Amino acid sequence: MQFHQHGYVSGDPRIRPAAGIGLDRPSELPAEMDVLIVGTGPAGMITAAQLAAFPDINTRIVERRGGRLEIGQADGIQARSVETFQAFGFAERIIAEAYRITATVFWKPDPADRTNIVRAARAPDDTTGISEFPHLIVNQARVLDYFAEVMAYSPSRMKPDYGWEFQGLSIDESSEYPVAVTLVRTVGEHAGEERVVHAKYVVGADGAHSPVRESIGAKHSSTHANHAWGVMDVLAVTDFPDIRAKCAIQSGDGGNILLIPREGGSLFRMYVDLGEVIEDGAHAVRNTTVEQVIAKANRILHPYTLDVKSVAWSSVYEVGHRLTDRFDDVPLEELGTRLPRVFITGDACHTHSAKAGQGMNVSMQDGFNLAWKIAHVLVGRSPASLLATYSAERKVIAKNLIDFDLEWSRLMAMRPEEFENPTELEDFYVRTFEFPAGFMTQYQSSMLTAEPANQELATGFPIGKRFKSAPVVRVADANPVQLGHHHRADGRWRLYAFADSHAVGEASLLTDWAQWLSTSPDSPLVKYTPDGADIDSVFDVKLITQQDFEGVDLRRVPATFMPRTGPFGLIDYELVYATDPANDIFEARGISRDGAVVVVRPDQYVANVLPLQAPTELAEFFAPIMQAKS
Amino acid sequence: MQFHQHGYVSGDPRIRPAAGIGLDRPSELPAEMDVLIVGTGPAGMITAAQLAAFPDINTRIVERRGGRLEIGQADGIQARSVETFQAFGFAERIIAEAYRITATVFWKPDPADRTNIVRAARAPDDTTGISEFPHLIVNQARVLDYFAEVMAYSPSRMKPDYGWEFQGLSIDESSEYPVAVTLVRTVGEHAGEERVVHAKYVVGADGAHSPVRESIGAKHSSTHANHAWGVMDVLAVTDFPDIRAKCAIQSGDGGNILLIPREGGSLFRMYVDLGEVIEDGAHAVRNTTVEQVIAKANRILHPYTLDVKSVAWSSVYEVGHRLTDRFDDVPLEELGTRLPRVFITGDACHTHSAKAGQGMNVSMQDGFNLAWKIAHVLVGRSPASLLATYSAERKVIAKNLIDFDLEWSRLMAMRPEEFENPTELEDFYVRTFEFPAGFMTQYQSSMLTAEPANQELATGFPIGKRFKSAPVVRVADANPVQLGHHHRADGRWRLYAFADSHAVGEASLLTDWAQWLSTSPDSPLVKYTPDGADIDSVFDVKLITQQDFEGVDLRRVPATFMPRTGPFGLIDYELVYATDPANDIFEARGISRDGAVVVVRPDQYVANVLPLQAPTELAEFFAPIMQAKS
Repeated sequence: MQFHQHGYVSGDPRIRPAAGIGLDRPSELPAEMDVLIVGTGPAGMITAAQLAAFPDINTRIVERRGGRLEIGQADGIQARSVETFQAFGFAERIIAEAYRITATVFWKPDPADRTNIVRAARAPDDTTGISEFPHLIVNQARVLDYFAEVMAYSPSRMKPDYGWEFQGLSIDESSEYPVAVTLVRTVGEHAGEERVVHAKYVVGADGAHSPVRESIGAKHSSTHANHAWGVMDVLAVTDFPDIRAKCAIQSGDGGNILLIPREGGSLFRMYVDLGEVIEDGAHAVRNTTVEQVIAKANRILHPYTLDVKSVAWSSVYEVGHRLTDRFDDVPLEELGTRLPRVFITGDACHTHSAKAGQGMNVSMQDGFNLAWKIAHVLVGRSPASLLATYSAERKVIAKNLIDFDLEWSRLMAMRPEEFENPTELEDFYVRTFEFPAGFMTQYQSSMLTAEPANQELATGFPIGKRFKSAPVVRVADANPVQLGHHHRADGRWRLYAFADSHAVGEASLLTDWAQWLSTSPDSPLVKYTPDGADIDSVFDVKLITQQDFEGVDLRRVPATFMPRTGPFGLIDYELVYATDPANDIFEARGISRDGAVVVVRPDQYVANVLPLQAPTELAEFFAPIMQAKS
Repeated sequence: MQFHQHGYVSGDPRIRPAAGIGLDRPSELPAEMDVLIVGTGPAGMITAAQLAAFPDINTRIVERRGGRLEIGQADGIQARSVETFQAFGFAERIIAEAYRITATVFWKPDPADRTNIVRAARAPDDTTGISEFPHLIVNQARVLDYFAEVMAYSPSRMKPDYGWEFQGLSIDESSEYPVAVTLVRTVGEHAGEERVVHAKYVVGADGAHSPVRESIGAKHSSTHANHAWGVMDVLAVTDFPDIRAKCAIQSGDGGNILLIPREGGSLFRMYVDLGEVIEDGAHAVRNTTVEQVIAKANRILHPYTLDVKSVAWSSVYEVGHRLTDRFDDVPLEELGTRLPRVFITGDACHTHSAKAGQGMNVSMQDGFNLAWKIAHVLVGRSPASLLATYSAERKVIAKNLIDFDLEWSRLMAMRPEEFENPTELEDFYVRTFEFPAGFMTQYQSSMLTAEPANQELATGFPIGKRFKSAPVVRVADANPVQLGHHHRADGRWRLYAFADSHAVGEASLLTDWAQWLSTSPDSPLVKYTPDGADIDSVFDVKLITQQDFEGVDLRRVPATFMPRTGPFGLIDYELVYATDPANDIFEARGISRDGAVVVVRPDQYVANVLPLQAPTELAEFFAPIMQAKS
């Protein structure tokens, strides 16, 4: 955590100095704004939290409810999401508070007496070390609280505007604020009153029934029947020995439960399968009472019993596997002819079962993908064509998610006797683990994702996948750190310069590259950093040497890796890293001993891998993405 | 972190439900209170934070200043203090925010040109793995902020009362609130007005010039001359390559600097030695300006330069090595004839140099030692005789501290040519590392610290030293955890039952011990837990098996390790641990394969080690410490 650079900060350093809109942010929703986000779920809140890092952008986020979410909804947090929370600065706190999943335990009918269940298998989570972060369970409300804190502590001092419901929108490209949005007050003395506000961009994060989606005419379709679940968060006394483990439980009569232990040590969630739903419009399943759900859970758990003492939350819901045909307002037939003004994210784009704990996670990555793009366009850093990449990139991910979840749901719903192989369920779980952990996302080649022409220079940083952190040693203070954790959600591009084998300061590929980056008129740093701005304001440039930290002489490090910034022109000492002799990052991530440049997007995905000796390729990569400073 | 046990908690689980005094705590200082703490430094704030866990005790903490500390003062945080912060629930946050020390670098005159300094040696911190926590640097103000948060979030909803200065006190044992304290308002329209309040106990945490110490007639004496230091927290540009490392720097002309990098990546502190002070009462050294300190620093750092851009804080101070003869109001000649009502802590008891980063740490352990004792006496859990142990225990620690610091200061002040051995300074540092890290405290045998009759049953938990955590696996959820981290600053005693080699549930020493603890009228659990209170309210009892977690059948675990508590009678699943196969705690801590009971005080120090087959010795140990429930 870096602070004090602009002068001593006496209080909590997580509270950044107010700037721009944050200096005098109106508490009432204004008539005009740069970005209007509809919905304060995970997709909306991460979008807002990311935009809050740009205090020159006036972002508002509206919510139909009168206040914060208090209970219920999602609770599964993939390691990929915890990585994301790390970038937003609250990973260590949510880890301390959450339940940590270390395995999934499979319970099946006892072959000797099929009226009983027995423990059949235990599949450990993440046996491959896919992330340095754990797999967590914590209520969605707390995730939203943390994002709200990020927003409130940001330079923008952003807060959600509660009590506004989206009614409809129209677009007039001739206007400075082209999207006219009609909202209705839902609470207070003015409840029911309509109001029209104008925005440059609108983000619909308004759930499975998304009115924003309807307003842009996107199609949300499914070829599969809906499925019903009884879900309950309860405090109970039970003799079921794995009540504090994540369990997939199948009983002899075909019933099944997904058991999710929850934060705090006592509460747990059960998803009790209520079967496929007949689509007759009657929604009869919704009349299932929590008592019926508890009774069914007791039947499935036999011979164990569940004595529920307190129901914190329960719901019966029907869900299908649905995918929206486009994630913005540009119809497929107009692609390439105009640019989007309205986007949809999260459940508005994709719905599926809760079985794999995916929903909140994929939704957050939607928002993380979108927010920096809107920000870069609004501040003039990038052309508006960047915005078309959102729908293109995330639709593929959503399709993969639904395909995966369909298969997982099918397996979970099968009766034990239907499996060809008795361990088919747990085998699938272990084999596909990387997917539900959130790490199968690999963006396809595009203006943001290079062709893998130089992938062999850094085989452990696959282009299109998230930058996987690794241990290094920070030279200036000899601290062992995770290289990836320096990447905060500040909207900056990252350039990781992995040095060739020469010592720092000697004539080398690295020295030449650094010189080019500092001085060439073609250098993205020179070209795209606005006049008067700190040289690290658009690109965060780091050096990783092959030497150990004691071998690096800081006085010989090229200045581009020790920039002087802020009102006092202080040196940034946190950009020069050495290999950890116990875990050489060059070995761990397959980096060429001739060095490499790894380009990482603001949302942590690897955009390109380039040789040190090809700086012009770096310039060419950024040419369509960035705009020269104005 | 355990919560939801009494019903669903929607918001931040760190905010505990208000209870007792916290339900309607007056914002104004009341006329009568159980405990009055004077001073909001580290010693006072930890005392208040610990007492805040007892909402039936009315504690107030007054401070002469009008508000929170903003800058300056101490910054060194030993690993022992971070362990303590873990118990108070904010370790992970302060670690994220602080600077981490990994080594001390020694700079000395260049033998080739004594006008220059050169790097001479590098002594890594904690090469022995003395704690799982790091050695940190962070401003004292932030430590106080975190304790203030603990107080505010506690059931007592405690807040400091700013703007009150201590004037004097008198004691009248015939009164229910025996200590009459005169305070003066220091701020606002009533500034200067006196007020007398009454307390059962008073804690003086009011610094080196402690008026509370004066009021009880304790002697604060020294045999050594004062030493002067110029200290400054600055933002600067420098070519000194180790500016982000902790350095002890000696120049050829005898000048020396202790360099302490600070939190946030830019700020650093320098202690510039201004030499011994002539005690003529004139305090001429205090006229030294920060410009003079900077100039001296530049001379010492030659050939490197220091271009100070911003002075966040600076001070010139004189300090001696002083120790107070007693830490409470009972004169030595009256020891054993009456019990204390007034205590002093921290700098009021001991002052010394800042060179070893000790002050804040030892002061916090003073308060941690004292607070639970006052609480147990006030709630009737323990006899008042417990209170005499505070001065007895902490005086020894303070004496050791001053002896250590005298030696360290003497070595630091020596000219290079005065050393017999050129590496004497760094050798001393490495050899004595355990002391400044905070782990040399070993309480002597007393009513609270047993004779080491059974130490061989658990050689890695020396009686009188702090309980050193080790990795284990929590059985219920197969989570790898640190055993010691379950110990929160809740004022409870801990009983760690390390099982013998039988499987849990079989006839065994452990089974018999558990049965005794649950049912015997002599059992401390039975005897000292108040009627109607949860069985875990006074003692926190844990089981550590020799089996791995998959071998433990929770249904066969004795009920004393799976107590049912709270309004719903829920099972506590966080008290049964298995060995981590990769790091067997029985091996790591030298636990007998016949098992052992390790008794740990509320302030984390090991009080006793007993065999499982000697439950009556456990009863006898607690007999003088505890009182039967009333």
